[in-house]
Amino acid sequence: MKALVLEKTRHLSLRDIELPLDLRPDDVKIAIETVGICGSDVHYYTHGRIGPYVVEQPMVLGHEASGVVVETGTNVRHLKPGDRVCVEPGIANDKSRATRLGLYNLDPEVVFWATPPVHGCLTPLVIHPANLTFKLPDNVSFAEGAMIEPFAVGMQAVTKARVTPGDVALVIGAGPIGIMVALAALAGGCSTVIISDIQDQKLAIAASYDGIVAINSREDDLGAFVGLCTDKWGVDIVFEASGHPSAFNGIFEFIRPGGTAVFVGMPVEPVSLDIVSAQLREVRIETVFRYANVYDRALALVASGKVDLKPLITETYAFGDSVQAFERAAEGRPRDIKLQIRLGKDAR
Amino acid sequence: MKALVLEKTRHLSLRDIELPLDLRPDDVKIAIETVGICGSDVHYYTHGRIGPYVVEQPMVLGHEASGVVVETGTNVRHLKPGDRVCVEPGIANDKSRATRLGLYNLDPEVVFWATPPVHGCLTPLVIHPANLTFKLPDNVSFAEGAMIEPFAVGMQAVTKARVTPGDVALVIGAGPIGIMVALAALAGGCSTVIISDIQDQKLAIAASYDGIVAINSREDDLGAFVGLCTDKWGVDIVFEASGHPSAFNGIFEFIRPGGTAVFVGMPVEPVSLDIVSAQLREVRIETVFRYANVYDRALALVASGKVDLKPLITETYAFGDSVQAFERAAEGRPRDIKLQIRLGKDAR
Amino acid sequence: MKALVLEKTRHLSLRDIELPLDLRPDDVKIAIETVGICGSDVHYYTHGRIGPYVVEQPMVLGHEASGVVVETGTNVRHLKPGDRVCVEPGIANDKSRATRLGLYNLDPEVVFWATPPVHGCLTPLVIHPANLTFKLPDNVSFAEGAMIEPFAVGMQAVTKARVTPGDVALVIGAGPIGIMVALAALAGGCSTVIISDIQDQKLAIAASYDGIVAINSREDDLGAFVGLCTDKWGVDIVFEASGHPSAFNGIFEFIRPGGTAVFVGMPVEPVSLDIVSAQLREVRIETVFRYANVYDRALALVASGKVDLKPLITETYAFGDSVQAFERAAEGRPRDIKLQIRLGKDAR
Amino acid sequence: MKALVLEKTRHLSLRDIELPLDLRPDDVKIAIETVGICGSDVHYYTHGRIGPYVVEQPMVLGHEASGVVVETGTNVRHLKPGDRVCVEPGIANDKSRATRLGLYNLDPEVVFWATPPVHGCLTPLVIHPANLTFKLPDNVSFAEGAMIEPFAVGMQAVTKARVTPGDVALVIGAGPIGIMVALAALAGGCSTVIISDIQDQKLAIAASYDGIVAINSREDDLGAFVGLCTDKWGVDIVFEASGHPSAFNGIFEFIRPGGTAVFVGMPVEPVSLDIVSAQLREVRIETVFRYANVYDRALALVASGKVDLKPLITETYAFGDSVQAFERAAEGRPRDIKLQIRLGKDAR
Repeated sequence: MKALVLEKTRHLSLRDIELPLDLRPDDVKIAIETVGICGSDVHYYTHGRIGPYVVEQPMVLGHEASGVVVETGTNVRHLKPGDRVCVEPGIANDKSRATRLGLYNLDPEVVFWATPPVHGCLTPLVIHPANLTFKLPDNVSFAEGAMIEPFAVGMQAVTKARVTPGDVALVIGAGPIGIMVALAALAGGCSTVIISDIQDQKLAIAASYDGIVAINSREDDLGAFVGLCTDKWGVDIVFEASGHPSAFNGIFEFIRPGGTAVFVGMPVEPVSLDIVSAQLREVRIETVFRYANVYDRALALVASGKVDLKPLITETYAFGDSVQAFERAAEGRPRDIKLQIRLGKDAR
Repeated sequence: MKALVLEKTRHLSLRDIELPLDLRPDDVKIAIETVGICGSDVHYYTHGRIGPYVVEQPMVLGHEASGVVVETGTNVRHLKPGDRVCVEPGIANDKSRATRLGLYNLDPEVVFWATPPVHGCLTPLVIHPANLTFKLPDNVSFAEGAMIEPFAVGMQAVTKARVTPGDVALVIGAGPIGIMVALAALAGGCSTVIISDIQDQKLAIAASYDGIVAINSREDDLGAFVGLCTDKWGVDIVFEASGHPSAFNGIFEFIRPGGTAVFVGMPVEPVSLDIVSAQLREVRIETVFRYANVYDRALALVASGKVDLKPLITETYAFGDSVQAFERAAEGRPRDIKLQIRLGKDAR
Repeated sequence: MKALVLEKTRHLSLRDIELPLDLRPDDVKIAIETVGICGSDVHYYTHGRIGPYVVEQPMVLGHEASGVVVETGTNVRHLKPGDRVCVEPGIANDKSRATRLGLYNLDPEVVFWATPPVHGCLTPLVIHPANLTFKLPDNVSFAEGAMIEPFAVGMQAVTKARVTPGDVALVIGAGPIGIMVALAALAGGCSTVIISDIQDQKLAIAASYDGIVAINSREDDLGAFVGLCTDKWGVDIVFEASGHPSAFNGIFEFIRPGGTAVFVGMPVEPVSLDIVSAQLREVRIETVFRYANVYDRALALVASGKVDLKPLITETYAFGDSVQAFERAAEGRPRDIKLQIRLGKDAR
Repeated sequence: MKALVLEKTRHLSLRDIELPLDLRPDDVKIAIETVGICGSDVHYYTHGRIGPYVVEQPMVLGHEASGVVVETGTNVRHLKPGDRVCVEPGIANDKSRATRLGLYNLDPEVVFWATPPVHGCLTPLVIHPANLTFKLPDNVSFAEGAMIEPFAVGMQAVTKARVTPGDVALVIGAGPIGIMVALAALAGGCSTVIISDIQDQKLAIAASYDGIVAINSREDDLGAFVGLCTDKWGVDIVFEASGHPSAFNGIFEFIRPGGTAVFVGMPVEPVSLDIVSAQLREVRIETVFRYANVYDRALALVASGKVDLKPLITETYAFGDSVQAFERAAEGRPRDIKLQIRLGKDAR
């Protein structure tokens, strides 16, 4: 089957590759329609590795997918051929200790699309566990369906924050994850979200949403702005979504007594943190790794109209143009939030 | 000073009455602008008591108030004369055990407007602790300000529910509190709220909000409807906001495994509850008494535009017509959600 | 294989019966050593049913088991033949929505030993999932191992209570579950547990533990005693472990503002509850159904010496005397807390 | 009145000093009996400052106190002259935003004994708010009463950890705070506490308690030991109680998926933290600043016998020997956990 294969660093091919297509009783077979390009896909393309995960043999990219069910295993009840779906890409061991605790995202045995050596979904047909495959409501498009995966990270962050209704949040970083965290925070109970970045184009996209206030932290004093917005009390929650070491500098000073910090961005190296500054406010810090049990909730919020992900889709490429799509993604244009690839019928 | 005085059951006068106006260092003096009529005010008017609270001497009614600060005590920092405000009406003992735990609404010593023998606020001037007096954002009117008190009950209910973003909720009862619970639930992270009642007029008002689905539980099968909306999983949260004994019958069957029930309505008599039905789902039940620490959050949600309370204000009376306003409230017209009384400048 | 079979109401046989013994890759085969008799076993024996669960065909009784692993499936890593173990008896669907949330005890598809039509473990050899089979620490006997199942109910109750260290609790009911709740509460952070019952013999056993204060609620005024113990503040947590309707009468009046009630006992019929009394204190009510993710923790507490279950084992019968053991259990002698049956080597 | 006065760095006098003794209606007057010496007292003595708090004028030291009530204000109900008490030393603004949330320890206006420029309690008579003064149970001595203050820090840490009953914890640092955290963790629901330090003498004292396992992390591999104790799963909670920068290195690797870190020790400088290591386990990090609402619970645990603080009192000095007591404390002998000063009757 044809697939977008990362042969090695900086070398992509759209070519045939052997992929397993055995349908077990609890699986479904899915015809992929749309796949979003994630920063991690791009990073594997440009660097060949992320931390301990190294691309040592050709690997199909892609893990943000929507599609159509074409076949169901014998145990599957809640899906049938023809159902439009989106897909949660991490497969944990059902019997593990972490999974039984409801923490399946933390199962050390988890198998995740496009994390070496596991193949991803930039290919017309995939097999996947039915209980990780979610039916799209009629008013949610394939393009939106493929946005659920990155939005799920925002949902996980906001779920862990345990928002009290009416909270004011600060999101540091207006990349795709930062904006999705901001949208999840608003949908999840915040009254206002301040978002900071150093790129005005990204901030402009974020600020186009009701409830999001954008600030360029290179040009303006973020601390003073937070003080102004919160009557010097501090925000209830800071979401760090940039992963940049400098973002952790003074981060607790934005937070009210008894507030929360959620670390979503993943800094490559250890960062320097002022523990005493956190202690003076008894800040609770939550950390986020992917997501668990949020796909159904994410879909409900998109279907209800409370969250609109469409403005974040910058451009869509045909499957045949996948390599160009990745080249553009690797450029990191300031206006680009999310690029997607459509596979559609002609690709099969 | 003139005030709306409940002389005894079914007997109201708009007359002069002696009220204390000493300004202590932590107090403010407030010129009342708008006061909403609450079901409890009406119940004192019609029955002369609510449970153990009996009106034994003339009492000024009213506890849902907005106004303008006219004088501040010497310790007051965050308010100044001219500030438009709304008022949290329950005054706890600052030094009590409950207050120190952050549960000041549960302090047995709490003094609450228009709860016998404490006078309420249907009078042009009141003295109140500054830290229970909240500045109205510029885009929040006096009429909305006077709605914060009942909305705060909804906020308390939703705060205690601990919504997970994207939850689906069922609110039983579409009276003013039920609708405000529904609005707080949506603003507080729910994707959809189902609301049930037996009066179509109230349901129509509720259903005019995006995200609220209304069902007449006398005409339709509520359980079947919940099953349909949730793919037979059950809602994440049920808010009981009617206080009617029959509403507790089978209430846990609407709830998903691990879900929550929040009891907001106050049934006069003990009710019959199927404990085993709750246990099979390990339902958590939260109970609500007024509110604590939610006024600032409620105001933030109204100011941000996430919550619109204006459609719930059915009609506004002049202070001079207060008695008629109460007579109408006592009728309980099906279309009436909230009646308000304006005091304004001429009344002083 | 020989087993204790409930043929129908009031009719037990120790006889051969065909039981499946296929070992799948994730299973272990266990030689049963000790089985405790639970109130539910006795109730099936005396009444033939518990609520909707009706014994319609011969069923092996018993679900509180310890034993020795004799064979392991090919996927099993953490156990090997010869390991002494205890067994969690409920098998959920690994792929269900409840299980993925960590709520596997609430999975509607759960299969539970000795709950009709599922056979129990009063038989020399059983097959069981390895991840529900827990190795006994060296200092934990088979007799104690077979007590982990009922103790797990206490652990679940205390886990859901979310004890704040130093809490004072009241446990209503000094049967086996009540006492185990009390022991779990002490081990789980309570400073003192008041336990109430109407049988002095059971209270005496409870009171033999440090930290448990016993009161006969028929002879003494429980409310006055709670007031005395808590300086009129109320207990932090009430655990209802009797299931008796009268226990729910006035139950919230024992609780401090902001406290918790945990409903462990299962009343056959709906009970009458004073909701307003709960609301005045904003009581949180948790409900308990069996347990999830507590076996490892229960074992850790027993192994550490913080919980001593041995005094609760009243008498032990040989497998050959199983019918007599059940007859005695059905008598409900006031001094009997737990009767156990030993299968041992000769029974195989 | 006579008092132990820190004149300036390294200069203590036991001399007369003017201290206010006005009794307001909500205050009590206390004759101090016993005062413990805290590391912070010693640090002011040796360095003249802690972070931003600088001793610029003579200041009475001491904040860990027990004593006897000698007079009560007119509003005081729960105490009377002759009551033996211990004292919570931080006085927040009752009306502040933090206090109303139950976070009075985080009130920026808090006034705390022996934190410059506020005088401490090493003097025979003090005035204090009655609601921060706690009656000692009959079986709790003055010496133990003066240990409640440092134990309260352990209680706060364990309360914030939200122990699940049966958790295994690791405490890093076996100084007085580390050991008290360990004791609070055991009393608060942990089954076992591993404690690490580099001083064998302190470890020996910790290890003398049931349930505490000690390891010298300079001599043994702490990670390997944690793996051994937890079957390679990791501990549920790590309490960092040393404040040493090196303790934060690799700290998250000791923790199970979904576990918790509690930062109790206060590192002078920002520390380097591996955020990704926390994220891979979705570690929740709690931070601790003093305590709130734990004195009553701490006393209940000591009175119940679940916590024995007496072995931690290394030696007791007479008030007249206070300077020598501080000189010894400043030596930092490896066997010294807590030194106390007794004022008793002769000192007045």
